[in-house]
Amino acid sequence: MLGANSYGKSGIRLVQVSRHGDRHDVQDLAVSVRLEGDFGAAHLAGDNAAVLPTDTMKNTVYAMAAERSLEPIEAFALRLARHFVETHAPVSLARVEIAERPWERIEAGGRPHGSAFRRPGGEARLAAATCGRAESGEASIEAGLGDLVILKTARSGFSGFARDRFTTLRDTDDRLLATALRAIWTYECDAADLSFAALRAGIRQTLLETFAEHESRSVQHTLYAMGEAVLERHAEVREIRLTMPNKHHLPVDLSPFGISNANAVFVATEEPYGLIEAAVHRTAPPARS
Amino acid sequence: MLGANSYGKSGIRLVQVSRHGDRHDVQDLAVSVRLEGDFGAAHLAGDNAAVLPTDTMKNTVYAMAAERSLEPIEAFALRLARHFVETHAPVSLARVEIAERPWERIEAGGRPHGSAFRRPGGEARLAAATCGRAESGEASIEAGLGDLVILKTARSGFSGFARDRFTTLRDTDDRLLATALRAIWTYECDAADLSFAALRAGIRQTLLETFAEHESRSVQHTLYAMGEAVLERHAEVREIRLTMPNKHHLPVDLSPFGISNANAVFVATEEPYGLIEAAVHRTAPPARS
Amino acid sequence: MLGANSYGKSGIRLVQVSRHGDRHDVQDLAVSVRLEGDFGAAHLAGDNAAVLPTDTMKNTVYAMAAERSLEPIEAFALRLARHFVETHAPVSLARVEIAERPWERIEAGGRPHGSAFRRPGGEARLAAATCGRAESGEASIEAGLGDLVILKTARSGFSGFARDRFTTLRDTDDRLLATALRAIWTYECDAADLSFAALRAGIRQTLLETFAEHESRSVQHTLYAMGEAVLERHAEVREIRLTMPNKHHLPVDLSPFGISNANAVFVATEEPYGLIEAAVHRTAPPARS
Amino acid sequence: MLGANSYGKSGIRLVQVSRHGDRHDVQDLAVSVRLEGDFGAAHLAGDNAAVLPTDTMKNTVYAMAAERSLEPIEAFALRLARHFVETHAPVSLARVEIAERPWERIEAGGRPHGSAFRRPGGEARLAAATCGRAESGEASIEAGLGDLVILKTARSGFSGFARDRFTTLRDTDDRLLATALRAIWTYECDAADLSFAALRAGIRQTLLETFAEHESRSVQHTLYAMGEAVLERHAEVREIRLTMPNKHHLPVDLSPFGISNANAVFVATEEPYGLIEAAVHRTAPPARS
Repeated sequence: MLGANSYGKSGIRLVQVSRHGDRHDVQDLAVSVRLEGDFGAAHLAGDNAAVLPTDTMKNTVYAMAAERSLEPIEAFALRLARHFVETHAPVSLARVEIAERPWERIEAGGRPHGSAFRRPGGEARLAAATCGRAESGEASIEAGLGDLVILKTARSGFSGFARDRFTTLRDTDDRLLATALRAIWTYECDAADLSFAALRAGIRQTLLETFAEHESRSVQHTLYAMGEAVLERHAEVREIRLTMPNKHHLPVDLSPFGISNANAVFVATEEPYGLIEAAVHRTAPPARS
Repeated sequence: MLGANSYGKSGIRLVQVSRHGDRHDVQDLAVSVRLEGDFGAAHLAGDNAAVLPTDTMKNTVYAMAAERSLEPIEAFALRLARHFVETHAPVSLARVEIAERPWERIEAGGRPHGSAFRRPGGEARLAAATCGRAESGEASIEAGLGDLVILKTARSGFSGFARDRFTTLRDTDDRLLATALRAIWTYECDAADLSFAALRAGIRQTLLETFAEHESRSVQHTLYAMGEAVLERHAEVREIRLTMPNKHHLPVDLSPFGISNANAVFVATEEPYGLIEAAVHRTAPPARS
Repeated sequence: MLGANSYGKSGIRLVQVSRHGDRHDVQDLAVSVRLEGDFGAAHLAGDNAAVLPTDTMKNTVYAMAAERSLEPIEAFALRLARHFVETHAPVSLARVEIAERPWERIEAGGRPHGSAFRRPGGEARLAAATCGRAESGEASIEAGLGDLVILKTARSGFSGFARDRFTTLRDTDDRLLATALRAIWTYECDAADLSFAALRAGIRQTLLETFAEHESRSVQHTLYAMGEAVLERHAEVREIRLTMPNKHHLPVDLSPFGISNANAVFVATEEPYGLIEAAVHRTAPPARS
Repeated sequence: MLGANSYGKSGIRLVQVSRHGDRHDVQDLAVSVRLEGDFGAAHLAGDNAAVLPTDTMKNTVYAMAAERSLEPIEAFALRLARHFVETHAPVSLARVEIAERPWERIEAGGRPHGSAFRRPGGEARLAAATCGRAESGEASIEAGLGDLVILKTARSGFSGFARDRFTTLRDTDDRLLATALRAIWTYECDAADLSFAALRAGIRQTLLETFAEHESRSVQHTLYAMGEAVLERHAEVREIRLTMPNKHHLPVDLSPFGISNANAVFVATEEPYGLIEAAVHRTAPPARS
């Protein structure tokens, strides 16, 4: 029997340029569309009558991008998801995910340039909208950020942990803590007219400040503090999920060379890595989890 | 409030060499461990008493690898998962995932060499074990394969699909179909003493043959046929999930140069790509899904 | 002043399907074209009259691919390079590089399938042709292979090396030796009608066998033996350049757990890595080096 | 016969933390070392007496990093390269390359935090030092930057180019121009006591401003203008080499949907890509090229 199934288009790369005289704005997105619904006949009988081609999804993204600004990306994701459930009867659920890579203006002659840009790299702004069938009108909006690489060189320890015969790690009250943060938060249900860009900036700042200031006793400890601070300061957020790989920085043993290493020289390693994940939500657990 | 959470170690790279005189065997694994359980105090209060360090997980993998052969990887995953639930009271669930990259013997002097190997690249063998608390003894064993890149140049079309104002794709009864297959199957509950290596080889062959022979009317159509064939031929499998990104190969339009392209010259593209996913299971749906 | 300069197109992905009844053949190439010549006006004055667009290079590759088989890739590279020097007067040198990723037939019903393929991954076949101006007719043909990952678990040591105050490495007469081999060889000048495919297969086998059999005292030692063997057995080869990153496999210290590790359990690391490179050529040094 | 050869260690990942009370500084480097010299005996006879292990190179980097600040990286590269030629007689040439990934301070409470950092991603600062044998004392210092992704949405065209039967590209006077700039410049010989950090910042600004302001008639045209501006404004630079892949942004054809696309919606593509490279140097050509 056919179980859970979905199909869609990923990696739709889209750049929109908005021109206001000499001042241009750029948005650079990667969009993915995923549909669930009544697609059994395609799987079982090769009957494609209900299957909107993924090529059409791509065309739809470009065509709808021509209509108006893509800012904020949460609203663009919602427009797209709504489109697919409203126009195609077999679709029971549409999910649209967007990753935006920001461009910053180049400074030239002491001023931000109107039409030249630099990509800071790394960090992505994320948004997702999930819509059920048109009649119910239910929709969920998520926002987030990914690949936000952060490091603290103070206020981080790890001690008093469980030990067994395979434990060689020692307690430390001073270690480097680095991660590539991925945070995805879900807005309360009536989210469609929120100020997404301002909220994103505020939540990002809350995450960064809490990371910086926290007296960390473990990755878990700091992760939870970050999530808790977001829920405390941003009433629009119902739940936040945080993923924090532990990008280990190990002090180098220089004693064979008669050199002491006072927590100053580290080797950065990629593998293996700790991986810490948790959701933090308001007291009433969200319906979806 | 703290919601779903877990932590663990990923990217534990492990190579085991077994020596039988001049004939050596090599296994090359990447292991990840993930634990769920009673870790609220670590998150909320910075109390690490229940937290087994991820560094210890890594040590455990290497130490247990020294005890005996890692073949089959399904059994090694199960031993590891059992170890964590049985030895650490706060752990309510342990999941161990293994990706094996095979090495093949180099042919030298017309014979497979005893101690020199070539890595064919690409394809990975996957296994996972999930164990609940020790007392219940419940465990789930999955196996699979990933990054199996396959292509068919005949018996593949896509026509009769849904159309809307953004549809420009035309019906075709002769297109290239290529994908990077990921297949994960779940064994029936009493799986611990199955012949995992033989089963994997058989299921892989079923997947490949069905892909090759199928008269494909869509990716969905072929995906389902592949899953159905596995369930029909391999009674030990309860459910299989298949992920098939559509690696598009587009015929090049050579008409501007007065050259006809009789479905012979294609451009291979990476982005955007269709993404088709489905699970196929026996009539009684599996409890977990 | 303008110094050395070139321009071209890279990443031209090309798949050619040849159909012989039910038996199809597939070739999967990535082509790059690079031109040198009299392009000063474009740089200094923005005068593009001598600049053939890189988009045209791409079109040329696809159009010339429609004419005939792409096998062997050395000949296709040469045809392309010749085309650019012969048809565009400003071009003084054209270099075409090709990387081929092989597809193997899927076995179905005990036989290689006619139109279904599996990509073994990893290894690439490389070819390059460099042509000077048409009148001189000089051309150089290179072939090679890349990403050939190989490992030997016996007959490899490293001892008696130079030591200074920063040396902690110990002598060993039994270590794992692994590399991702890249080998590029240059054929003798009158190369255009060689049996490139057979030569490539033979040279690859010489490299693999020598790696397998060699009593290795260092990466350098084995690298040179491999290059020397190619020159000894394949008179058509004028020079070979080998690049062998040392993919370190370090024995895990299990003594803290009371477990001995008899050279059986290793951690595979990616960084840092040794990198060994050398060219081996016939006694009369090649003109180009 | 053994031809050109070298060996070394790559991917040495090094993080140095300097602590000044509550204010910490972080430097994050990847170092590679490459030696040339009298290593024939290792290749031909397996005699390692002249071979300093690459493991020792790694240790040396960490040990010398403990002595003092790594800023500027040009000086650290030079110290390391000098060390190897001065302390090991067989070494005739040592080259050390460094890629620095910058960390920026997190803003917290309106102020840059003393010990919490964010990695902006993308751009790398590059440095290299090449030293010959100790007696001659000759050294070359290069600096540069890589992965600097830039885009201009105005003042960029491409027209009047050469055409042949495979040309379909049309003239345009308004296209997007994007690249991932790599620029490496060589300092004049007496470079050891330059203000490397200030020079790097100035040269980077010259490159960015020229890119932004230039009335571009091709990538070549803008590349040359950028190199020329660096030589004009920075007398310390002897030569600069620029690599500019053309990251194509193609306007999407929305006419099938009755939508006009006034140069507003683009698809960003990765393959194929144009690749433009050139060196620009002072009138007297540099000795090395």
